[in-house]
Amino acid sequence: MFSYFQARKHEISEYLRAFFDEKADALTRVNPLGRDLCERLHAFSLRGKMIRGGLVSLGCSVAAGAGCTGERRILNTASGAAMELLQSGLLIHDDIMDRDTVRRGLKSVFYQYAELAEGRGIADSYHLGESLGVCAGDVAYFLAFEILGGLAAPPEVQRELVALTARELGYVGVAQMQDIFAGAGGAALADEEVLKLYLYKTGRYTFSLPLMAGGVLGGGGPELLANLERLGEALGVIFQLKDDEIGLFGDAAETGKPVGSDIKEGKKTLYFGYLRRRAGAEEQQRLESIFGNPEIGEEEVQYVRRLVESLGIRREIQGRADKLADSSRDLIDAVAPSGSPDREVLRGLLDYSLARTR
Amino acid sequence: MFSYFQARKHEISEYLRAFFDEKADALTRVNPLGRDLCERLHAFSLRGKMIRGGLVSLGCSVAAGAGCTGERRILNTASGAAMELLQSGLLIHDDIMDRDTVRRGLKSVFYQYAELAEGRGIADSYHLGESLGVCAGDVAYFLAFEILGGLAAPPEVQRELVALTARELGYVGVAQMQDIFAGAGGAALADEEVLKLYLYKTGRYTFSLPLMAGGVLGGGGPELLANLERLGEALGVIFQLKDDEIGLFGDAAETGKPVGSDIKEGKKTLYFGYLRRRAGAEEQQRLESIFGNPEIGEEEVQYVRRLVESLGIRREIQGRADKLADSSRDLIDAVAPSGSPDREVLRGLLDYSLARTR
Repeated sequence: MFSYFQARKHEISEYLRAFFDEKADALTRVNPLGRDLCERLHAFSLRGKMIRGGLVSLGCSVAAGAGCTGERRILNTASGAAMELLQSGLLIHDDIMDRDTVRRGLKSVFYQYAELAEGRGIADSYHLGESLGVCAGDVAYFLAFEILGGLAAPPEVQRELVALTARELGYVGVAQMQDIFAGAGGAALADEEVLKLYLYKTGRYTFSLPLMAGGVLGGGGPELLANLERLGEALGVIFQLKDDEIGLFGDAAETGKPVGSDIKEGKKTLYFGYLRRRAGAEEQQRLESIFGNPEIGEEEVQYVRRLVESLGIRREIQGRADKLADSSRDLIDAVAPSGSPDREVLRGLLDYSLARTR
Repeated sequence: MFSYFQARKHEISEYLRAFFDEKADALTRVNPLGRDLCERLHAFSLRGKMIRGGLVSLGCSVAAGAGCTGERRILNTASGAAMELLQSGLLIHDDIMDRDTVRRGLKSVFYQYAELAEGRGIADSYHLGESLGVCAGDVAYFLAFEILGGLAAPPEVQRELVALTARELGYVGVAQMQDIFAGAGGAALADEEVLKLYLYKTGRYTFSLPLMAGGVLGGGGPELLANLERLGEALGVIFQLKDDEIGLFGDAAETGKPVGSDIKEGKKTLYFGYLRRRAGAEEQQRLESIFGNPEIGEEEVQYVRRLVESLGIRREIQGRADKLADSSRDLIDAVAPSGSPDREVLRGLLDYSLARTR
């Protein structure tokens, strides 16, 4: 599984290198910031794991069987590169919203610009960084659609890819709005709303979209596409539930994040919803002083962890993940023939999602 | 000319009403902010003059002659709506960068969200407004590409439209970066750089892109498309030069903007570049205390105006506009047959651009 995605990442990286070489020349004709932006977007995109990009190839392979070679393979790589550019654009904007100065082990893109502006002695350099970051994210989206628009795929395939991608990204935007609105205290979300948020903000977009895009490229029929969509949804929600679990119970040495970071940030995870509903009045009060409080220590984190265990919340959420894993297995069996390498990769992805601790 | 664009605006508005009705339902399935966003984007888009949208029809008409009816007309309207949504997205992001709280006679979109957040007692409501505004602009882009991706045009036409639009929007993003960077004092621009900025930030995107998109929809050949591109560039730069002139010499009662607003903002217009180069040392010093100073009064504005006149700058820049108008007339004659309604509309647009005082 890892080697499959590593190979795809290698192909997509090669594509991006050639693409940015060409675009840097084109955008330099606009002005010198064009080349500079290409270099930043390129470096930033290369730091991703490129799971989304790799899933395009996997979806195509599932749909076309052994037929996903030659021309089709090139189309997979180009579409995968577009997925990665869209992800870069979303992350660049996300970091502005969250004021995150580090991403993918680099300074976040808007912060790179803020530092550049500060170096030139510009007043209000942080805001200029944000503004340039907004533009940079926008350009990343436009480059992605330029790739999809220029794809030398059969017409109905190309059209479907553009429409599918644009539609799904619209969902991501609206889900992101709810996420930051709820995170800032603008709305309380019921459990089902949290799950829907997981589905639309990352789940479908990270798994369903690239799998379906690949399915379309591989000539898959409506039934296969529907199965890929559902499989992506299941994998996506599992991934997010696991993310929450790691955010709560994860080991700082493994995750590289401070212990209980989700608690300190007051993240509106499914755990948070369960706790709010199930804790008694006294516990509620204590929880209120803990969630969203960056000053809390080990003791408070342990308190929340114990509560999540003792109220049966961890078990129950694990149960949800297990159920989704069961349907994922069924869907994997439905889309990929027994013994096929594709089935192995998909199972590997599922197992990894379930077992990962960071 | 006005009635032509008004009729197109009417058609595009009808299209947008139906489109947002449908999208509001789809995005409400994501969460309630989806419908709310559709309402805001819809109201915001309806306030535009929709020149871009109208130019698509004009480009198609020029390319197809009397053949731009039926199916093609519907495609024009849909593509025009996409152009308007892209413009809305760009303006929404632009207002965040410039911290403009009013746009098109409404509160700017990010500011609407900031007020909403403030009303809910959310700390840091301004930043939440900015974040939601970034998402809103993103969604506007994605909706535009969803329209273009779903266009029931011949495959090669649809593909060309997506690629053309995405490529041009990438240029806009990079030009916008230079504009805000220079505006914040990050770089001094030579005259030719300012003109290139005009070309890529608004000129080509406002005129060349929709004219060419229409040309593609109308089945125009490479020569016609190249002429439409050049015509759009000429019209675009004229429009911007006129904008600068109005910003400097305009009557507050007509423009609705305070006298000398461009001077107070320290806008890096072509006039500014000429002044910087031509003024003597003493004048330079005085200019430096004036440009970008929001506290200046009538006297300073008059000083700059006199200098622009006495140094022959106004005449020279007018000469540039006149030259562009000459080539525009030639290009209009080349693309639209004598006596055709299209030629009348194009000439009307040019004359309006040259004569407008607000």
